[in-house]
Amino acid sequence: MTDTPLPVATPATALPQPYLLFLGDITEPAYAKTAFGLRDWAPERCLGEFVLPGARVSTGLPLLTPVQAKAAGARAMVIGVATPGGRIPPDWVPTLCEALEAGLDLVGGMHARLAAIAPLREVAARLGRRLVDVREPPAGLPVASGRRRAGKRLLTLGTDCALGKKYTALKLARAFAERGHAADFRATGQTGILISGAGIPLDGVVADFAAGAAEVLSPDAAPGHWDVIEGQGSLFHPAYAGVTLALLHGSQPDVIVVCHEPGRTRMLGYPDFEIPAVEEVIDLAIRLGRRTNPGIRCAGLSFNTGALPAEEARRLMAAESQRLGLPVADPMRGGAAFERLVDACLR
Amino acid sequence: MTDTPLPVATPATALPQPYLLFLGDITEPAYAKTAFGLRDWAPERCLGEFVLPGARVSTGLPLLTPVQAKAAGARAMVIGVATPGGRIPPDWVPTLCEALEAGLDLVGGMHARLAAIAPLREVAARLGRRLVDVREPPAGLPVASGRRRAGKRLLTLGTDCALGKKYTALKLARAFAERGHAADFRATGQTGILISGAGIPLDGVVADFAAGAAEVLSPDAAPGHWDVIEGQGSLFHPAYAGVTLALLHGSQPDVIVVCHEPGRTRMLGYPDFEIPAVEEVIDLAIRLGRRTNPGIRCAGLSFNTGALPAEEARRLMAAESQRLGLPVADPMRGGAAFERLVDACLR
Repeated sequence: MTDTPLPVATPATALPQPYLLFLGDITEPAYAKTAFGLRDWAPERCLGEFVLPGARVSTGLPLLTPVQAKAAGARAMVIGVATPGGRIPPDWVPTLCEALEAGLDLVGGMHARLAAIAPLREVAARLGRRLVDVREPPAGLPVASGRRRAGKRLLTLGTDCALGKKYTALKLARAFAERGHAADFRATGQTGILISGAGIPLDGVVADFAAGAAEVLSPDAAPGHWDVIEGQGSLFHPAYAGVTLALLHGSQPDVIVVCHEPGRTRMLGYPDFEIPAVEEVIDLAIRLGRRTNPGIRCAGLSFNTGALPAEEARRLMAAESQRLGLPVADPMRGGAAFERLVDACLR
Repeated sequence: MTDTPLPVATPATALPQPYLLFLGDITEPAYAKTAFGLRDWAPERCLGEFVLPGARVSTGLPLLTPVQAKAAGARAMVIGVATPGGRIPPDWVPTLCEALEAGLDLVGGMHARLAAIAPLREVAARLGRRLVDVREPPAGLPVASGRRRAGKRLLTLGTDCALGKKYTALKLARAFAERGHAADFRATGQTGILISGAGIPLDGVVADFAAGAAEVLSPDAAPGHWDVIEGQGSLFHPAYAGVTLALLHGSQPDVIVVCHEPGRTRMLGYPDFEIPAVEEVIDLAIRLGRRTNPGIRCAGLSFNTGALPAEEARRLMAAESQRLGLPVADPMRGGAAFERLVDACLR
């Protein structure tokens, strides 16, 4: 999966690495998106994992204590899990202090800031370690101007959260680069930022500046250059649709790819809300996106078919492609369908 | 205009008052929205105005120095103007310190925080004065739940910024109360908060929590109670549409009123962007708003006709009402057309 290096504008040197991945005591794999993302997309920067008693989730990487990881060359322990509400549980703090004592910096991506936890602040100050909060947006973001920028942009959009927008963007950025196109993956969330070493955590930006942040994230570029932008939320999400619309307007994409998980019928965590049909998402995204890029078009769909047998996934995607008149592919399965999706993006 | 007190859930006792309105040295009336709003909607709390040399804007209130205002009973000087970018110019700071020295607290509503300006912080601390930033959102706002709440809600939406969404909501809230309906004006911006003494500055909320803030702003209420919510931005605004959508989803309005300024053809400050047709705004708002309230409907339109002669305004609104099949009124002109708009909201 990582034969071709991921194309990113800024090398990941800004973050201390390689990493030890901390999984806390979680029992639900869905909360370990960050750890899995790093394992899959930046394995050369992940030396191992560390868990608390009671944890029932693993990345499959070697189990290392902070002391062992430091001895193996690790420079930081990354909190590779999210918790509901984005808080850092108090009983994690002694272990986080241990990692600092062992010689590792700490990198976090939750809403709760490492630097807001007094014991961490004190230990880090005493030892000269860094507390890096990748969810902290840069200062001085502007209000969006709406000005058209040079270069090409692709944005992934979803029928819901957590169904493959980041992976799709990563796969497409790599595929564009493999075909010889200048391309940058543009991260908008903490995992993407950890993977690529750059980006803006869009959901942490004050609402008035969210579209402006999306403009800053994908600046003017050479005419043939592609920014492949990680989507956030969904235009149909009752809590996050505003973030999605700000990202759509500010990204002014030439091309969108709509991401969906077949079989998911209700919004994750919002059982009263049905998942919209993919054609509804395409139609609404084109209608809204035209405001800042009249040439916006949908190149196709990315299906997350991990829960289906291969043959069933193939048949379903072929039928949907026929029905919609657009390429439908699972980027994690690759194959001819994915090549057709890449063709349609670059057309 | 203020014969009937404005219905608000929380009395304005949280803010120190009455006010002296500070207009800085501005020369463009459009930047004095806050001062004009306070003069028009809370005149009983505004003792006078104070300006710097070079100012060419006035509210018409008596000109008072901070010392005179203090002697007349003022408790705070309100920065009643915005500047492009929301900054406080450095050459205002000595005057703001003078007001503190004169015995007044300072109240600000710009993105730049009073408390971030060291000389103000020092003088306020030395004298025991308050620096109140009404654009600072409350801590601990939740992510939106999407849960349907009891009571009725009305949201004003606009074809653009700065064309009457707040005034329309204020007028409607007062009209509802005059007809004996329980109603609260719900402020989402700094001027509305200063007028009503309560509210949440929606544009200062971190994007992930913006819809959740809108839910907190209009909580469960009695079945016949109306929350009349001040709109923000526009669904067609290249910078602020995300804020507008978060407010629409979180407010889950039963009724929307679309606000427009006839004759304005380009978005304010965005000359490359055309003002959308009012029917486009109605259609898009209904489509998006259905996600959290399937019963959403548009009761009518509010036109800002201040620039037109009375007879021309009347003819235009009658023709638009005929064309759209909806009441069209200018709340500032009132009359039978406005009564029809109120009827349609309460139907």
